[in-house]
Amino acid sequence: MVTTVVVGNPKRNSRTRAAAERVAEALSGRHADHVIEVIDLGPALLEWGDAGIAAAVDTVAGSDLVVIASPTYKATYTGLLKTFLDKFAGATGMHGVVAAPVMVGGAWDHALAAELTLKPVLAELGATTALPGLFLLESEFESDGRIDDYGRRWAPVVERLTRAAP
Amino acid sequence: MVTTVVVGNPKRNSRTRAAAERVAEALSGRHADHVIEVIDLGPALLEWGDAGIAAAVDTVAGSDLVVIASPTYKATYTGLLKTFLDKFAGATGMHGVVAAPVMVGGAWDHALAAELTLKPVLAELGATTALPGLFLLESEFESDGRIDDYGRRWAPVVERLTRAAP
Amino acid sequence: MVTTVVVGNPKRNSRTRAAAERVAEALSGRHADHVIEVIDLGPALLEWGDAGIAAAVDTVAGSDLVVIASPTYKATYTGLLKTFLDKFAGATGMHGVVAAPVMVGGAWDHALAAELTLKPVLAELGATTALPGLFLLESEFESDGRIDDYGRRWAPVVERLTRAAP
Amino acid sequence: MVTTVVVGNPKRNSRTRAAAERVAEALSGRHADHVIEVIDLGPALLEWGDAGIAAAVDTVAGSDLVVIASPTYKATYTGLLKTFLDKFAGATGMHGVVAAPVMVGGAWDHALAAELTLKPVLAELGATTALPGLFLLESEFESDGRIDDYGRRWAPVVERLTRAAP
Repeated sequence: MVTTVVVGNPKRNSRTRAAAERVAEALSGRHADHVIEVIDLGPALLEWGDAGIAAAVDTVAGSDLVVIASPTYKATYTGLLKTFLDKFAGATGMHGVVAAPVMVGGAWDHALAAELTLKPVLAELGATTALPGLFLLESEFESDGRIDDYGRRWAPVVERLTRAAP
Repeated sequence: MVTTVVVGNPKRNSRTRAAAERVAEALSGRHADHVIEVIDLGPALLEWGDAGIAAAVDTVAGSDLVVIASPTYKATYTGLLKTFLDKFAGATGMHGVVAAPVMVGGAWDHALAAELTLKPVLAELGATTALPGLFLLESEFESDGRIDDYGRRWAPVVERLTRAAP
Repeated sequence: MVTTVVVGNPKRNSRTRAAAERVAEALSGRHADHVIEVIDLGPALLEWGDAGIAAAVDTVAGSDLVVIASPTYKATYTGLLKTFLDKFAGATGMHGVVAAPVMVGGAWDHALAAELTLKPVLAELGATTALPGLFLLESEFESDGRIDDYGRRWAPVVERLTRAAP
Repeated sequence: MVTTVVVGNPKRNSRTRAAAERVAEALSGRHADHVIEVIDLGPALLEWGDAGIAAAVDTVAGSDLVVIASPTYKATYTGLLKTFLDKFAGATGMHGVVAAPVMVGGAWDHALAAELTLKPVLAELGATTALPGLFLLESEFESDGRIDDYGRRWAPVVERLTRAAP
């Protein structure tokens, strides 16, 4: 199983990234194979035809499980993350990928954003959106047990969806 | 595999029901085991504690695959359907159920309602929302091939999620 | 200015109602002229053609300001409320009405539901949705100052929209 | 009345821009005072502290009416547009601005995106979101009359909201 983490925080090595890596481990039992910090893809995100971005898209499309994580800006995912998601082919760009939408924020009042705003974009790209959107409080996710709960509940579903066909 | 169809159309034997039964067949390869016309549950839908409604909830909760279908009213699912969904336990009421959100409408402009409005309710109930929302045009679904396409694309996912664990 | 409160709580005289009446006062400076408890409209909500429901629809459609309030069920408005909203004419049923979407819940994590799920239904009915969705915590709204803040911010907008044309 | 058009299309002088300028005229009766093509703000959109972006934010915040327009990417607004919206102050960045959400797409099936995905971001920024989201078909908006209809219906509301207080 190939696992990739996509981080849409403009700041590198953010707590969003830390949360996303923990989610990937909770769902798959091991470290993510790839971590894509969208900000590393640079100004070409505003254009088309960049080889580095194409490679990142291929990494995601070739993964079995992808954790897509964003801080919460204006009650939804960041524009930075969306500039990357805009590079995928509609309807098929994440075909066959189990995608876990994760958002990190400073207060609970935007908790529905992961399910209501980020997950539908992944569904539009053809991902298998079997898991609910997971919202994490920036100040608490390391100790509040929510990532562990999510892993316990959904790792078996990920396992069914990603293991080799019998 | 136990398959159930839930129909939220105030009119019995509606085209919504016909569409939902076709979707269930396309996803499972056979007729649905149960069809729940929410309108048959009667005025007790506005109250609590009715045995017939509790039995219908149990039927859904005990199914492997549930097709939840609604006509499109005011750009979303019907109030009738939601009165039934309100009877499930939050977060766990559809635990372990693969739920396919289906909406039927008279024009394409409300097509996103299945993904953006109906599917999040099923996710909130704990369902496995692996499949994208499916919107069908009332006048065309019998011949436009969309149900077949949906079945071809997503039946293998349903199969993985619902077969007995190895 | 005619002000109406619509309450979608299955329980009469709920805290949802209390909150909605306070919002109406904060926005208009006086008591609501009409309070419609949807549950009072009875089992005819599941059917069509009831005179009492038609009168309630007319009351709303003839109001300048309507506060539409619901408890939070399954991360959105109640099915009960939607059965009433389903009785309005699409696109025009709330034409000319300033509609304030209010939801009351037990925890902050569903706070976005007022803006993301209830308000779009009111927009679909043709209402003037100038005000943001307001989510209130059931245990705190009487003392947390959020209703007063909402009134201070948005009463001037309501006043502009509802006063007689010059 | 100061009117500004914001265009979130990565391609300059797009049909999105043409549509947005027509909407601004239909709502205000005259040409927009400012047109901001987000792509012109350049790579600094991915960072913070750029003077040109700050000036563009100030132009929007100082406007009475803003038409925010995007092509439809992955069933919602572009990442490009969101990188600009992310630069506004949350809750207050568009305080006092009447914001019209406009999306342009190639087919009707994403029509709800303007109301369900773009408008809530504007509400989160504190804008007065009195007008419904307007979705336009790229191939038809110049002749299908929808912009005129929108103007006839909503220009009086814009006028009430933006004229000098009596």
